[in-house]
Amino acid sequence: MILHAMKRIGIADTTFARVDMARSAISVIKKESSAEIIRYTVPGIKDLPVAAKKLLEEERCDIVMALGMPGGAEKDRMCAHEASTGLIAAQLSTNKHIIEVFVHEDEAPDESSLAHLARRRAEEHAINAVRLLYHPEILIRLAAHTNGQVNGHAFRRMRGLRWKRA
Amino acid sequence: MILHAMKRIGIADTTFARVDMARSAISVIKKESSAEIIRYTVPGIKDLPVAAKKLLEEERCDIVMALGMPGGAEKDRMCAHEASTGLIAAQLSTNKHIIEVFVHEDEAPDESSLAHLARRRAEEHAINAVRLLYHPEILIRLAAHTNGQVNGHAFRRMRGLRWKRA
Amino acid sequence: MILHAMKRIGIADTTFARVDMARSAISVIKKESSAEIIRYTVPGIKDLPVAAKKLLEEERCDIVMALGMPGGAEKDRMCAHEASTGLIAAQLSTNKHIIEVFVHEDEAPDESSLAHLARRRAEEHAINAVRLLYHPEILIRLAAHTNGQVNGHAFRRMRGLRWKRA
Amino acid sequence: MILHAMKRIGIADTTFARVDMARSAISVIKKESSAEIIRYTVPGIKDLPVAAKKLLEEERCDIVMALGMPGGAEKDRMCAHEASTGLIAAQLSTNKHIIEVFVHEDEAPDESSLAHLARRRAEEHAINAVRLLYHPEILIRLAAHTNGQVNGHAFRRMRGLRWKRA
Amino acid sequence: MILHAMKRIGIADTTFARVDMARSAISVIKKESSAEIIRYTVPGIKDLPVAAKKLLEEERCDIVMALGMPGGAEKDRMCAHEASTGLIAAQLSTNKHIIEVFVHEDEAPDESSLAHLARRRAEEHAINAVRLLYHPEILIRLAAHTNGQVNGHAFRRMRGLRWKRA
Repeated sequence: MILHAMKRIGIADTTFARVDMARSAISVIKKESSAEIIRYTVPGIKDLPVAAKKLLEEERCDIVMALGMPGGAEKDRMCAHEASTGLIAAQLSTNKHIIEVFVHEDEAPDESSLAHLARRRAEEHAINAVRLLYHPEILIRLAAHTNGQVNGHAFRRMRGLRWKRA
Repeated sequence: MILHAMKRIGIADTTFARVDMARSAISVIKKESSAEIIRYTVPGIKDLPVAAKKLLEEERCDIVMALGMPGGAEKDRMCAHEASTGLIAAQLSTNKHIIEVFVHEDEAPDESSLAHLARRRAEEHAINAVRLLYHPEILIRLAAHTNGQVNGHAFRRMRGLRWKRA
Repeated sequence: MILHAMKRIGIADTTFARVDMARSAISVIKKESSAEIIRYTVPGIKDLPVAAKKLLEEERCDIVMALGMPGGAEKDRMCAHEASTGLIAAQLSTNKHIIEVFVHEDEAPDESSLAHLARRRAEEHAINAVRLLYHPEILIRLAAHTNGQVNGHAFRRMRGLRWKRA
Repeated sequence: MILHAMKRIGIADTTFARVDMARSAISVIKKESSAEIIRYTVPGIKDLPVAAKKLLEEERCDIVMALGMPGGAEKDRMCAHEASTGLIAAQLSTNKHIIEVFVHEDEAPDESSLAHLARRRAEEHAINAVRLLYHPEILIRLAAHTNGQVNGHAFRRMRGLRWKRA
Repeated sequence: MILHAMKRIGIADTTFARVDMARSAISVIKKESSAEIIRYTVPGIKDLPVAAKKLLEEERCDIVMALGMPGGAEKDRMCAHEASTGLIAAQLSTNKHIIEVFVHEDEAPDESSLAHLARRRAEEHAINAVRLLYHPEILIRLAAHTNGQVNGHAFRRMRGLRWKRA
């Protein structure tokens, strides 16, 4: 008998963010999956890359969501760029996904729209994280727009991820 | 008797793209080669680097095409830059090629020209992927513009790739 | 009987800075923790990444603060970007945090406000460093804005860091 | 009796380039050295980093020239930047030189001047590659402007490269 | 009896530079220390990162100075950025310092002021290199502005570098 270990999803977020995006993401993950969730909060977005890597390596998460709210100034855009570059490097060194969910403070006209946007984006990406982990074939179907195109194709598993043989 | 293993081409694409570029690429590869094709779809272009690396390392692909459609805004150009940097890093850590096929949404005036452009570029690069894998000497010939210049030169193999001794 | 090794906090700073930010940070750390403090001063901010990595690896620090004051010119912003990128790379290769505290010379209208700003930021981030090392659950609480939201949740330890199971 | 292995120079170029820079470089190398030359052509400049690394590692080249012609648009400059970053990373992971020879399409007013410029630059850098490989002391002499300054100094070898003890 | 190996300082410079900055740096190092000096000249600043890494790893230098004169155009600033990024990566992979000394051609109004500036900067950074290698405690004292502040503090050694216990 083989016991399938429960999957683990890491949530890395920041105290700098003005919206609790982690809460929205965690709520969706709990609804959509049975994954264990580990939350790790760091001060700012530049602290996210190593936080995400620690979740993947030391906490053995299967995937991580990295949530952040960079400010609207030029300097903040640079910070976000540096954090993104680090998040990609962390993925390449672990061969696991880190779903970046950054909401820039200048993306909405006021505080309340920004909060709404941040929560919605965190939720949408939480669904993406769950799909990557449990149902990757759905992502192929979405990319192909219609179910018809992928009908009749064989699926195969790779380390617990399913994807489609084209 | 030595059995040559069938070659494998990975296709990494995104649900964010508004055109099914993977379909165009796959169609050309099937026509031009006997390679096995593995498709892996991720949410956005920043997820492509690790997806491509997983295809190369965990699915043992010989080459990967990374297909994406970055948006037209400044922020999207930065995303594309980060993804490209990651794709190059993934190649350097595997010593295998990842053919990046990005079509920026502002490259065409309307949706239908954009779709046409995206499909054509995916097809052209699919041919490049096949050539890198099976016929690298053709690429040298193209760079040298005329067949005449390369006549009489000896070809040699390197790990299944042929290239020319100058 | 298990002896808990005393924790070590590294302080990497530069001679180029016009304010002794290290002094402010060290003063807070001494007040807030029993950590041993190792200071390493280098000429400029581009020397900080390897200095921080040496503190983590050769001096076995558990966390490092990297303090710097980039100038206000375009060229200086690029230096700060390069240093930041290196600091993130150093974290990824050690799986430890480096808290970057950069104060740009154009962030304040005059020398005295700049000095005040630099000292305050160094102090605030010193508190963040102490929290990351000793009380990570406080950071989650801050991200969730209210104590109420995290009540009743179990905490767990990871290599001496506590964080919350969501 | 020790047999000195013949040195190998790799030439990585692209089909995208509108001038056969490789031909110019190869012609100079053949005139100036007895090195074996391995040419590897890829589609575009972003494919050059891994091509150069494969030449260094899989084809055991001692040095590589990476030849490319980025377009004149902003997007092309970014491609060149990404390729350059990758070429430097490839050098750092192999401890060998890759001489980058990029000619931007906007560097000359017309097609024929551009072709002339591209050929001349490829030739000049071919001489640099030969010098790095066989006569590094000449480069020191050039940097010191006059022969007089380096007279009387002892040379020493490092892995087949000669350089000067200051 | 323990024999302390003589320390080695590497000087990486370029033929592209219009001033022999290496000469100025070497002259200061000889006056201020007994270190052995190894000079390695490469064509341009993008060749400096691997040159510096080779000096650290293959020539066992304890520290390296990387001297360069990027041009004044936008394209040259990008080259300098790429070289700087590579120099930081080389430091992180060796845990040793590389002191970057770049003088941009647009930093001075005429050739003679530029030469003066380049020589002075090379000399100042040569002193920094010597301090990092032999007297790191002086750098802490400089950062703390006054001798008074560091009085009474114990120094400690780390792999031949002294620094201060705060």
